[in-house]
Amino acid sequence: MNDKCKNSAPIGVFDSGVGGLTVVREIVRQLPDENIVYFGDTARVPYGSKSKNTIIRFSEQIIRFLKTKDVKAIVIACNTASALALDAVRHEFDVPIIGVVIPGARAAVEATQDNKVGVIGTDATVQSGMYTKIIQGMNPDIQVIEKACPLFVPLVEEGFKEHVVTEEIIEYYLQSMKESDIDAMILGCTHYPLLRSKIRSYMGERIQIVNPAYETAMDLKQLLKEGNMANDRSKMHSHYEFYVSDTAEKFRQFANTVMPFDVPETNVVNIEEY
Amino acid sequence: MNDKCKNSAPIGVFDSGVGGLTVVREIVRQLPDENIVYFGDTARVPYGSKSKNTIIRFSEQIIRFLKTKDVKAIVIACNTASALALDAVRHEFDVPIIGVVIPGARAAVEATQDNKVGVIGTDATVQSGMYTKIIQGMNPDIQVIEKACPLFVPLVEEGFKEHVVTEEIIEYYLQSMKESDIDAMILGCTHYPLLRSKIRSYMGERIQIVNPAYETAMDLKQLLKEGNMANDRSKMHSHYEFYVSDTAEKFRQFANTVMPFDVPETNVVNIEEY
Repeated sequence: MNDKCKNSAPIGVFDSGVGGLTVVREIVRQLPDENIVYFGDTARVPYGSKSKNTIIRFSEQIIRFLKTKDVKAIVIACNTASALALDAVRHEFDVPIIGVVIPGARAAVEATQDNKVGVIGTDATVQSGMYTKIIQGMNPDIQVIEKACPLFVPLVEEGFKEHVVTEEIIEYYLQSMKESDIDAMILGCTHYPLLRSKIRSYMGERIQIVNPAYETAMDLKQLLKEGNMANDRSKMHSHYEFYVSDTAEKFRQFANTVMPFDVPETNVVNIEEY
Repeated sequence: MNDKCKNSAPIGVFDSGVGGLTVVREIVRQLPDENIVYFGDTARVPYGSKSKNTIIRFSEQIIRFLKTKDVKAIVIACNTASALALDAVRHEFDVPIIGVVIPGARAAVEATQDNKVGVIGTDATVQSGMYTKIIQGMNPDIQVIEKACPLFVPLVEEGFKEHVVTEEIIEYYLQSMKESDIDAMILGCTHYPLLRSKIRSYMGERIQIVNPAYETAMDLKQLLKEGNMANDRSKMHSHYEFYVSDTAEKFRQFANTVMPFDVPETNVVNIEEY
């Protein structure tokens, strides 16, 4: 690939399903000139209840698929895959790969005044302890409280965002975190920004809520700049392609509630072949 | 395989994850002399939100794996896979395969006095309309009301069986069914028997609740008898093997709450290779 081709090559973004679209939305906002190829592993979603080996194997297959699209960089938009697979795949592939955990951790380190940060995520993310490790690698004085909230994803996906049971389940999961004296909280799963207002109203205004998507897009911008890989042909219309491993019509429905434009056709890929 | 070997060959049972163990439990009760090989697709669970093509492909892989264990018959313990894949795989493989939908439908047809049956299941099961098709094939006068209850599975898996929000979600899903005049209701997902007492107390004593697991074990017994395949060496200890596609420790935890004996080690299989 010559340099010109490389700059117009797309960014690959992947997630276990639809949640990563909240990261795509942020990349589109901050990097409107970049082309994007998105892959959502809708045949094998969710990742949050699965093991490290399985999540690494799935991530490797997806990266091999994205490389067939000549991506110039890859964003793991899924917190679970970022926490469990980034270290493994980063050394395995010759394309720059970033996840959402490091950017999210950095934002929380900047946000906390009292050196006390809360992290909510899937079972797998919380069990990995990766957020704690990275935050304390940045500042060993910060205390981190992690809490798995495994019902948040199905509640969002089944359209219970505004239902009263969602408030009760938020209280069930977050009561002890509310009673602690954290002053910053990371939404460590790409679905959780969709519950942001309910989480905010339960946790109170004092707590800064960190959505890693924003910082991840910033990191991507920096990566492209440093590598001289940014696409500067701003006159051209950016091109977005969406791939999934299962033909769930839900993908498009959900995508159209998240994205600032109509999501066109989605293409189905047999990801197990990669 | 000679006849003697065939009779001592195991029954293959599979499910998207752990739910099918409620069917294994019933087979163990009714057919204590049979050996069983169980496969739970814990790497790709759940199936209930996925498409027909994907569920057929997953089922084919699992049947190919079970055939390497020389099973003499296969039970699809998952309602979603029974509803969407049984027709396809039954004609494709040279081993007898039964699902849970036909036995469950038959039990409901026998149970209803007023010719009005309710069915609850996953999105995919309900969208397939398979229960309605089969019930009305048995008795065209029966009216069938189907309702998808997609949050029941995560509620069971996340340990919310006894939580008050589960009662609220039961009411949310089942209110219209309660207000209809059904007198029999099929628990059309293998997880739902674990919510049976809460569903029963919401729906009231008038309604007969049908768990297809019982009838499925009866059908299996009949199949083995007709094919002269039953294992009659009752002096020997029956042997149970458990395979999963992901090493979720949850599998064993859950299995030990469902099965009448301690579930020994589980073996991990890379099911995508089949």
